[in-house]
Amino acid sequence: MRMYDLIYKKKYGVKLTKEEIDFIVQGYTCGNIPDYQMSAFLMAVCLKGMDMEETTDLTLSMRDSGETLDLSKIEGLTVDKHSTGGVGDKTSLCLGAMVAACGVPVAKMSGRGLGHTGGTIDKLESITGFSTSISSEKFFELVNKNKMAIMGQTADLAPADKKIYALRDVTATVDCIPLIASSIMSKKLASGADAIVLDVKTGSGAFMKTIEDAVALAEAMVKIGINAGKNTSAVITNMDQPLGFAVGNSLEVIEAIDVLKGKGPSDLIDDCMALGKLMLMSVNAASSDEEAENKLKKTIEDGSALKKFADFVEAQGGDPEFVYNTDKFEKAKFIDPVLSPADGYVSKIITDEIGMCSLILGGGRETKESEIDLSVGLIINKKYGDKVEKGEPLAYIYSNDKEKTAAATERFIKAYSFSDNKPDPVKTVFALVSAEGTRYF
Amino acid sequence: MRMYDLIYKKKYGVKLTKEEIDFIVQGYTCGNIPDYQMSAFLMAVCLKGMDMEETTDLTLSMRDSGETLDLSKIEGLTVDKHSTGGVGDKTSLCLGAMVAACGVPVAKMSGRGLGHTGGTIDKLESITGFSTSISSEKFFELVNKNKMAIMGQTADLAPADKKIYALRDVTATVDCIPLIASSIMSKKLASGADAIVLDVKTGSGAFMKTIEDAVALAEAMVKIGINAGKNTSAVITNMDQPLGFAVGNSLEVIEAIDVLKGKGPSDLIDDCMALGKLMLMSVNAASSDEEAENKLKKTIEDGSALKKFADFVEAQGGDPEFVYNTDKFEKAKFIDPVLSPADGYVSKIITDEIGMCSLILGGGRETKESEIDLSVGLIINKKYGDKVEKGEPLAYIYSNDKEKTAAATERFIKAYSFSDNKPDPVKTVFALVSAEGTRYF
Repeated sequence: MRMYDLIYKKKYGVKLTKEEIDFIVQGYTCGNIPDYQMSAFLMAVCLKGMDMEETTDLTLSMRDSGETLDLSKIEGLTVDKHSTGGVGDKTSLCLGAMVAACGVPVAKMSGRGLGHTGGTIDKLESITGFSTSISSEKFFELVNKNKMAIMGQTADLAPADKKIYALRDVTATVDCIPLIASSIMSKKLASGADAIVLDVKTGSGAFMKTIEDAVALAEAMVKIGINAGKNTSAVITNMDQPLGFAVGNSLEVIEAIDVLKGKGPSDLIDDCMALGKLMLMSVNAASSDEEAENKLKKTIEDGSALKKFADFVEAQGGDPEFVYNTDKFEKAKFIDPVLSPADGYVSKIITDEIGMCSLILGGGRETKESEIDLSVGLIINKKYGDKVEKGEPLAYIYSNDKEKTAAATERFIKAYSFSDNKPDPVKTVFALVSAEGTRYF
Repeated sequence: MRMYDLIYKKKYGVKLTKEEIDFIVQGYTCGNIPDYQMSAFLMAVCLKGMDMEETTDLTLSMRDSGETLDLSKIEGLTVDKHSTGGVGDKTSLCLGAMVAACGVPVAKMSGRGLGHTGGTIDKLESITGFSTSISSEKFFELVNKNKMAIMGQTADLAPADKKIYALRDVTATVDCIPLIASSIMSKKLASGADAIVLDVKTGSGAFMKTIEDAVALAEAMVKIGINAGKNTSAVITNMDQPLGFAVGNSLEVIEAIDVLKGKGPSDLIDDCMALGKLMLMSVNAASSDEEAENKLKKTIEDGSALKKFADFVEAQGGDPEFVYNTDKFEKAKFIDPVLSPADGYVSKIITDEIGMCSLILGGGRETKESEIDLSVGLIINKKYGDKVEKGEPLAYIYSNDKEKTAAATERFIKAYSFSDNKPDPVKTVFALVSAEGTRYF
């Protein structure tokens, strides 16, 4: 088999076999296939596509390029949740506690990552003492005891994906559904959970800008998961504005705790409920949508989710008092309002730009070496559809540097558009994708 | 400007500006743009195309990446002929002498190249003493004196094309008309002739397998040439069988000399006349098709082309007696017939495979380091449409190694198909492409 011939085939839209895809993935991972052939191949895939069988084969080949985790030491069926990412997405934090409080084990491997805020691990480190540097033995022990634990990703999961993604990132071959779907799913499948629930975001703060693209990606990922023998489902959710009000690290943890206290923002709660229901049902912890919803709601009403979160924090060395009294989180030095430049209704938010404000303030990493300032960020005051008067605060900027505040303020204002009339309301959850098909709401 | 953005643009079919194309060509040639970005870009060009303006800009950018030749020391307008290549194509040899005998300067820079036979320089070296190692001064002096000279390519013409071609060759991005057209034309334009005549071959022994593709390539190249201010025209000619009867190095020189003696094969003569007419008219050495044809025919009838060729050979150190007595060429040790396995008419020849027979015999280079055996090759005995009886010779194989003879014989037989009924006759010249448009015959 020669890589040249496989590039040529894909260039003419010919379907590749499992053996051919394995040859490419293994050859590239071990360095036998050079970058310049792989990038030509990836561009051909972007422009000629791959069908579901090829996409599944690609995913499994990448999954098998490194370690796959064995979660058999965990009692009960495990479920993994993945979000394609957005601004203000702190779902993992609150949802984890809610699902764990329902008795479903939440065993999360997490990374730090690049972005406008840190990853879940960074966010949790804003709680004094909290640590994810635990051994796998300790991790499994905590999951079995508390139903919830998180550890830093130590295993070499899907190294082929890592290498291919780095090449896609510099050759304009990122935006391609078969490549995105196989990249995400190869890591999820290597992580070993019994069921997978996906939160595919769409809108101005998401990678998928349209609902159609988001559904196509979700359908591809769900099919891959099912082809790989995992119960897999997805929701398509709105990222045309930040999720909730808080953007930042400690600010997002505080808002997640607010959800557990029954005072979270409605869009964040809707997102958590949609995902939580799928999670419970996918491991048979609820037999109907209604039962799942009731169970999840009860964890908030009876305080069990909040208690679960505090126990989880304490078990990993963190101070549980942060959960009950969020004034304990370190505060940014300066809190300044962003004043509305106009009267009207908020009609559009370029959500990516709100993420950039957090990055400017120091809340995220631009390179792997960047240090994150956990206390900075934004609290949105006016969201889509809200009425606002000129001079009213659109948001509050939490910062430790007045120059950065000024830069973030300028950028924030440009991200907002206003209209004279109240815009049409939008949904938080657009669609549900499962083995039964796609259902739009 | 960032290469990433330009790949992205082309991926979505966006037209690139001259500045953007210059950035890519210059950046890649000097090493600022890595192979893996260039190959992704080239694949995007293959699948999304380039319009004529982009293709011209690409050609001129590659032309200007190295030296361009100054032919102003040559008296009179110069014309350069280029063939896209085929099996048995010895047109340059005989046509050069015919055109020079009409008083038009033929100043040929030539390479050796890879292929089923050597290049024009290799072929001519089968004449004892002949050398192309002459200085540019000597070259110009000979052209002005004899109207015909040839030298090895010394200048660094279109280095961008060389580097890009090498990458295309390993990334399955060769078969793309804008890339092929710009590659050929960048070198032709750097070579400095006043007019360019192209012989675009089509069929089973050519890169362009269909007439439509050949016409599209010819139209692109003619437009580029005209956009660059050069009188450019092309003929589309048949390569569904070898041109003439001889395939090999010395065998092809002998057949070219036969043409000058008035006893050449009709398809080779037709090809030479079609190209010769364009060459004379493109430098105003004839004002009509008829006048050009008469002039060219006369050079054969009156022996002036043969004399021109002998003078040219002698001026470059070769023995002119080879021209008058072709028995002087070194002969292969073994001459064996390939016997027809069937009765019928020759209905199809996989011409690429006939080229492979020459390569197997040692007549061409597989790598730059290969040594060529100038005496080996084939003389075809039965061409397309010919009646043949089982056991009759289809061809004669000239070889210095009986094992190679056997391998070539086996391959040759597989390249021929036979039919019971005489197949429809085919043309040698299918179409003419010029500033006036495309005319089919």
